[in-house]
Order: sequence, then C-alpha cells, then structure tokens
Amino acid sequence: MNANEFSHLDAQSNPAMVDVAHKEVSLREAIAESRIVLPKEVVLLFKNQDILVKKGSVFNTAIIAGVMAVKKTSELIPLCHGLLIDNCQINIKLENEEAVITCKVTSFGKTGVEMEALTGVSVAALTIYDMCKSFSHAMVIKNTRLLSKTGGKSDFHG
Amino acid sequence: MNANEFSHLDAQSNPAMVDVAHKEVSLREAIAESRIVLPKEVVLLFKNQDILVKKGSVFNTAIIAGVMAVKKTSELIPLCHGLLIDNCQINIKLENEEAVITCKVTSFGKTGVEMEALTGVSVAALTIYDMCKSFSHAMVIKNTRLLSKTGGKSDFHG
Amino acid sequence: MNANEFSHLDAQSNPAMVDVAHKEVSLREAIAESRIVLPKEVVLLFKNQDILVKKGSVFNTAIIAGVMAVKKTSELIPLCHGLLIDNCQINIKLENEEAVITCKVTSFGKTGVEMEALTGVSVAALTIYDMCKSFSHAMVIKNTRLLSKTGGKSDFHG
Amino acid sequence: MNANEFSHLDAQSNPAMVDVAHKEVSLREAIAESRIVLPKEVVLLFKNQDILVKKGSVFNTAIIAGVMAVKKTSELIPLCHGLLIDNCQINIKLENEEAVITCKVTSFGKTGVEMEALTGVSVAALTIYDMCKSFSHAMVIKNTRLLSKTGGKSDFHG
Amino acid sequence: MNANEFSHLDAQSNPAMVDVAHKEVSLREAIAESRIVLPKEVVLLFKNQDILVKKGSVFNTAIIAGVMAVKKTSELIPLCHGLLIDNCQINIKLENEEAVITCKVTSFGKTGVEMEALTGVSVAALTIYDMCKSFSHAMVIKNTRLLSKTGGKSDFHG
Amino acid sequence: MNANEFSHLDAQSNPAMVDVAHKEVSLREAIAESRIVLPKEVVLLFKNQDILVKKGSVFNTAIIAGVMAVKKTSELIPLCHGLLIDNCQINIKLENEEAVITCKVTSFGKTGVEMEALTGVSVAALTIYDMCKSFSHAMVIKNTRLLSKTGGKSDFHG
Repeated sequence: MNANEFSHLDAQSNPAMVDVAHKEVSLREAIAESRIVLPKEVVLLFKNQDILVKKGSVFNTAIIAGVMAVKKTSELIPLCHGLLIDNCQINIKLENEEAVITCKVTSFGKTGVEMEALTGVSVAALTIYDMCKSFSHAMVIKNTRLLSKTGGKSDFHG
Repeated sequence: MNANEFSHLDAQSNPAMVDVAHKEVSLREAIAESRIVLPKEVVLLFKNQDILVKKGSVFNTAIIAGVMAVKKTSELIPLCHGLLIDNCQINIKLENEEAVITCKVTSFGKTGVEMEALTGVSVAALTIYDMCKSFSHAMVIKNTRLLSKTGGKSDFHG
Repeated sequence: MNANEFSHLDAQSNPAMVDVAHKEVSLREAIAESRIVLPKEVVLLFKNQDILVKKGSVFNTAIIAGVMAVKKTSELIPLCHGLLIDNCQINIKLENEEAVITCKVTSFGKTGVEMEALTGVSVAALTIYDMCKSFSHAMVIKNTRLLSKTGGKSDFHG
Repeated sequence: MNANEFSHLDAQSNPAMVDVAHKEVSLREAIAESRIVLPKEVVLLFKNQDILVKKGSVFNTAIIAGVMAVKKTSELIPLCHGLLIDNCQINIKLENEEAVITCKVTSFGKTGVEMEALTGVSVAALTIYDMCKSFSHAMVIKNTRLLSKTGGKSDFHG
Repeated sequence: MNANEFSHLDAQSNPAMVDVAHKEVSLREAIAESRIVLPKEVVLLFKNQDILVKKGSVFNTAIIAGVMAVKKTSELIPLCHGLLIDNCQINIKLENEEAVITCKVTSFGKTGVEMEALTGVSVAALTIYDMCKSFSHAMVIKNTRLLSKTGGKSDFHG
Repeated sequence: MNANEFSHLDAQSNPAMVDVAHKEVSLREAIAESRIVLPKEVVLLFKNQDILVKKGSVFNTAIIAGVMAVKKTSELIPLCHGLLIDNCQINIKLENEEAVITCKVTSFGKTGVEMEALTGVSVAALTIYDMCKSFSHAMVIKNTRLLSKTGGKSDFHG
C-alpha cells in the first residue's frame, strides 16, 4: 500500500477491501476517546450522591451498548474486516460537564482495531445522549478520536 | 414523563423503554450534523479536479454506510424503539479541511427520529475515517449534534 | 386457522408464515417469566448490602440484553412476524436462590407478542448465566413460560 | 481470575469483557440441554405415524433456528466473545410429553462455548413453542442447563 | 418520480432513499421466482421415493433461509425501506433437473415488496446450492426474476 | 464425507453443520459471477459519457452491498460456518445489455468461501435491480455460478 493512495479504493476508484491474506498475525490494541457535553441538570444530578445508582444505570447501559457495537463494527463500516475481539474495556467518567468515554480494544489478528475502538466510543456516546435527552437535546458529542494504536506496521499516539 | 426524570430509567433506576403504546402517530423529522477533520493530503486530493471520482467513492461509501446504520439504530441503542423510516437523506460536503455530514430522517410514528439521524452522521463519519486512515490517523470527529427535530410534543432547533 | 392444525405448516407440511394481511390491528400485550437458580456464592453476595452495585450491574446487563433480544425476536424465530414494539419492561428480583425474570411487551399490531416476551426472559436468563458462571456452571434456567397474553382473538392467563 | 469474583465486572463493578488476549487456543466443546413440555394434541399427533412429516418440519425448523442462534450468541449475550464455530449439532427427540433438545458446539479458540450451546437449545425450544402455540400456550421450557464442557482450564460435567 | 430518473440517486447523483413520507398505505404483494440446476446425482436421489425425507430437509432448510432473508431485505439492499411483512410463502418444486423456487410476499405499507420476494428466492437458491455442493459445484442459479407485483402505483406482470 | 451423501444432513436426515474441528487451515479463494440484464434505458444512459457519475453511484452502491453481504453469509445460509474474510473484491462491468458482476473472496481457514462469493454477487445483483427498477421491473438475474474455488481438498474450475 502506497501511503499516498486510498487503501480502500481499487485502480478504478471503486470501493474495495484491503487484502490481508498475506499479513502476519500480531497482537493489536487501540484506544479511542469521545466526549459528550451533558445537560446541566444531568451534571448536577450525577454529582449528587443520591444519583449514584442512576449514573450507574446510564453509564452501565452505555458501556454495554459500546461493547456490543465494537463486536458489530464490521457490519457497520462497509470495508472493515471482521475479527475476533480478545478484550474490550470501556470506561466513562465525569469531567466537569462532560462524560469522557474511553474504549480499549485488543485482538490477535491481521488488521488494526482502531475502527472498533472508535465505534465503541461513538455508540456509547450516542447511548448516553439517548438516555439524557429527556432533559435537553442540546448535547454535543465532540472530539471522537484515536488515542493510540499499537501492534501493526506502525504505531500511532494521538 | 417528568422533564426532571430519566425517561429510560424505571422507579428502581433500572433501564427501561419509554412506553409509547398510547402516543399519537405523527410525521417526525430530525436533522443531525457531524464534522470530521480530514488529513491534509486528503483535502488536497479532494480539491483537485482529478480526484472527483475518488471523492465520489469515499463519500458514496460513507452515505451508504450512514443510511444502513440509520436503519439499524434500534439494534445499536439499547432502549431505542424500532420504527419504519420513510426517508433518509445524507449529504457530505467539504468545508475547508472538514467533511461536513448532515442526515435528515423522516418517519411516521410514535417516537422521534433524532437517534436515527445522529447514528447516521456518526457512522458516515466513522466510514470516512476508515477510508482516509491510510493517510493519517490524526483525524477528529467533532460536534456531532442535533440541528433540528420536529413533529413530536416539542420541537427542537439547535 | 383450525386449532387442530399447525399454523406454521402449509398444506404440504412445509414451514410457512401465518398470513396476517387481513387481520385487525389491536393493542397486544404479553408477559413471560423465567427463573434461574443461582450459584450459592452469588446468592450470598447478592444478599449482602455491599454487593448492591454488583447485583445492579449484573441485573442491568441482563435487562438490557433482554430488551435488545425482544427487538430481535423475528430474527431468531424463523416464522415470527417483525413488529414495532411500543413498550418492553423487564424486571428481575431475587427469590431465595432464584433470580426471577419477568418481561412485559406491548405492541400495536396484527400479531401477538408472546414470542417477544419469551425471548426477552430467555436471553436475560442466559446473560445472568454468563455473568455468574465464574462461580459455578451448575445453574439451571427453569420454567420459562407465558404468564398472560391479551389483545388478540383469545386471551391467555397461565 | 479469582473464582470469588465476577469475571464480567471490573474493579468499579462496571460490566467488562474478560481479557483473553494471552490465553492459549484449544479445542473447546460444550453440550447443553433444554426440555419443552408440549401440548397434549401435539404429542398425540407426533406419536401418530402419519404426522412424521409434520414432526420433521417442526423439528427441522427448530434445529435450523438453533444453529443460526448459536452463530449469533455474541450478538445476544453482551459480554460474550465472538468466535468461529467448528461444529454445531442439535438433536431433538420426544420423551413422553417433552421434546428434549441437545446442542453440542465445538470451537478451536480461547474461550468456552457453553453460552453458544445454551443459546442454541434456548432458541430451538422457543421455535418449537412458536410452531406449536396454535394448539396451546400452556407450554413450559424447563431445565435449560449445561451437560458438559471440556477443553478449557477446568472441565464441567452436570 | 420521473420514470427516466434513478429513484435512488439524488440531484448530485449520490445514493439516496426514496421519500415515501406522503405515500398512501396499501396492500402490496409481489411474487418472484428463481431456478437452480441441480447436480444429476441429487436429481436422481430426489426422484427416488426413499429420499423424500432428505429432499424434505433440503427444501425445508431453504424455505426457512428464504423466509428469514425476506425479513432481512432492508439490511441487505442499502436503499430499501424497512417494512412489516404480513405474509411470506416460499414453495420449491422439482421440474426435471431444476428446483423451481417461488416466493410470495405481502405487506400493508407504502413501498412495494418486490425486493423482498427477490431476496427470498435468491437466498433459498443459495441455501440449496450450499446443501447440494458436496455432490458438485457445477450448479447454476438462473432466471431470478419478478413474476408479478400488485398494490402500488402500477402493477407488473412478468 | 462421502461424496454421495449430503454433507449437511445427519444420519436421521436432520440438517447439521459439517464438523471442521480437525480440518487443516489453508488459504481458500473462490470467484463467483452473476449477470443482470438491464432495462434498455439504463443501458443507453450508462453508455452515454454524461452518465458516468450515475453508473458510478449505482455500481459503487452494489459493490458495497455485495461486500457487506459477503461478511453476512453465515447469517443468511443456515449451515454455513462463520469465517474471517481476508479479502473481497467485487467488480462490475457492462457487457452489451448486461451488468456482469464478479466477486473474489479470500480467507485463511478451514472451510471454502464459495458461498461467500456467491452471496456477494447475488446481493450486488439485487442491489442493481433495486436501483434500476424505476425504469423497468423486467430485469432478470441470470447465471449466478461459481467460476473457481481453490485451496481446499479439491479445486473447482467452472
């Protein structure tokens, strides 16, 4: 693959999978992050001790949605290879008015897992949106990005 | 529903669907937007006349991924109702170094379609990421948000 | 439909959907129950005040899995009609050494929702099994059954 | 993993996959069983020689539903790893008024296949319920359980 | 819609769903057919009285695969609307060396069901191929086509 | 496996997966082809230079649908093993009034990938049908067949 070319377009510019038949298997890891700005009422509720269980339920639901989406990544992203996930850990914490979601994915295979990690944080963020939207629709999901990627031809640290 | 309560948590704070059995059917519409900052090489390539076909293939693929994700929304977001989509239009345009994605969803039903529109732009953005990542992994998906929502109990304009 | 005939077999005994094209739309509800006998260590842990959060996470995860399975019922049961779920409520409580799961499903349509309710409790029970199996594999899921069904040609109360 | 801890909860009691990145690959097998008590008319019909073809169609449909569900297990059980199934055999036989379903699953991988086998018998049982419910809704799916599990760290025989 | 235009391309030639928000609901029906030329050994086996059960299992499996694919059509065909299927009947018969598959789909909705019927016969044919390929891979699936379509703006009879 | 027996039926003629637990892993490749006869207006439009973009969008959409279906093959064909696709290339060209679709699939595994290649061309053909049906429903998908298969116990060249 030439770094100046779209890996997912063939010579006629048609969409195409990357051929990994002859790539080595290695342990791949990727970590992605996304942030969602929560409605003020929700931030207040979550900071209140009494709401621990509610925050728990909202964040638990988002974590599960994220993990299930990680496993569905190749169904969602058209040219993404299917792979076997060895590990997926999603964490969500409150930073001021934002819920910060990180997703670490590990797989022993021929392709990177950055799309899986990015899909995991995206769907977890959408699930938080869904669960908090009775308070306000003015939430923004911002800065969905890759934090790191290791185990492939070249590492990435964002 | 009390606006101070989580619509997706029951009295014991367990996750629960919103009961829409007795809601009226109406024509619902929602428009969402997401932006992805592209690698510089990709921006240059896309501005070049010769690359029209490549941009076409990248954007076409993202549009299709987005439309298919819209139809899968209730599989991804745990407490989201399934519904029948009447229309889904995804547009992608270049604004400086950003690809700006909008998704308009229409449905004739009992629940809003904001989660569908937000899922559509999110998966379209992830697909652009996937297709451009051979150039750089330093892309950021930013400001995924709802632009408008009409047809339900109360309209929203972001 | 003759009550002495298999509604899902045609005249040649081949599998076939039931034709509901000319059935009236009505509000359907079904409630199903399943019970899973938990490992003793888990029962002790769950009765302990400290474990509230752990029980919460286990039961939350099972509830979400059950709700998502309810929405997938027509993908799992070959001759089941797809339908739009208006409401789905899953509850789990401890009764001695058993976790008792109930699932109520409501839909406004042409077919009953008993398969949806039964699928919901079944997958919630399997999820509890999955989350507790590090303690023991000797769990039994017992008495998955329909408690009631209303809104169709004839009601059922188990 | 400590046998006294939930393998699917992390240190904060949030749901999490088990990390299998460094586990050895081995040949795993699991066998599960489920029983469904059939309506009396169905038992009589199935014992009658003439009905062989109908029983065949009902049981065939349930077997296929079960096999397809085995392949979908990681979509249904939130924290279950995806894996490649090497073999799946579902058998159904009549024992008095019960249909007894067994499902054997084999995979060469890092995780056990007990959830796959349990999912297979559960969905096969639900499918039999669906196909026989025109006779009676008073069926009960009972004693869904693991018969054996081999090839992992420790074997299980129920 | 102008009959000279692609209904699934927008003004910029990007793929797009057809907007059916303001279309009338009506009872739609479509019938499609596909033919698969079977290996000679299979034809001989199927004509033999002893093989009735085997043919039954092969055809049953194909029918179920076809019905399940009909319900998945909008997941497979990118711009296809999701809809609720009221009826789906698949029949398979032997004509000389060919298995002739027909699929009739009925739905009460805003869009035609011809893609559903065509998908049903296609996946049933692929399933027969899969089940007979141990005899020969030289099978051909031929003449997959629409036989009729009624209930929409204009009927079609092939 | 005896070449005179159905590999997907067990001793009681019930449907069953083929046991591949002890098969060797090897690099498998399969190529399939399908042809769809297009409406005359579409052929004229596609041959016209101005329509390049429209043909691009139609063929791009069909390619993506085909690739996504290849990854879903084991969800569609009941007894098909899941596997990890290493490569999938779909090409579509115009030959007189026909669109000729080829799909090459590569996988490093225990089972052949002919069903994946055949599913890919079938769904690509159905997608072209869907996108051109506003011109005419009189299209025929003909001669879906395997061109070659290598890497398993015996090669096939059609």
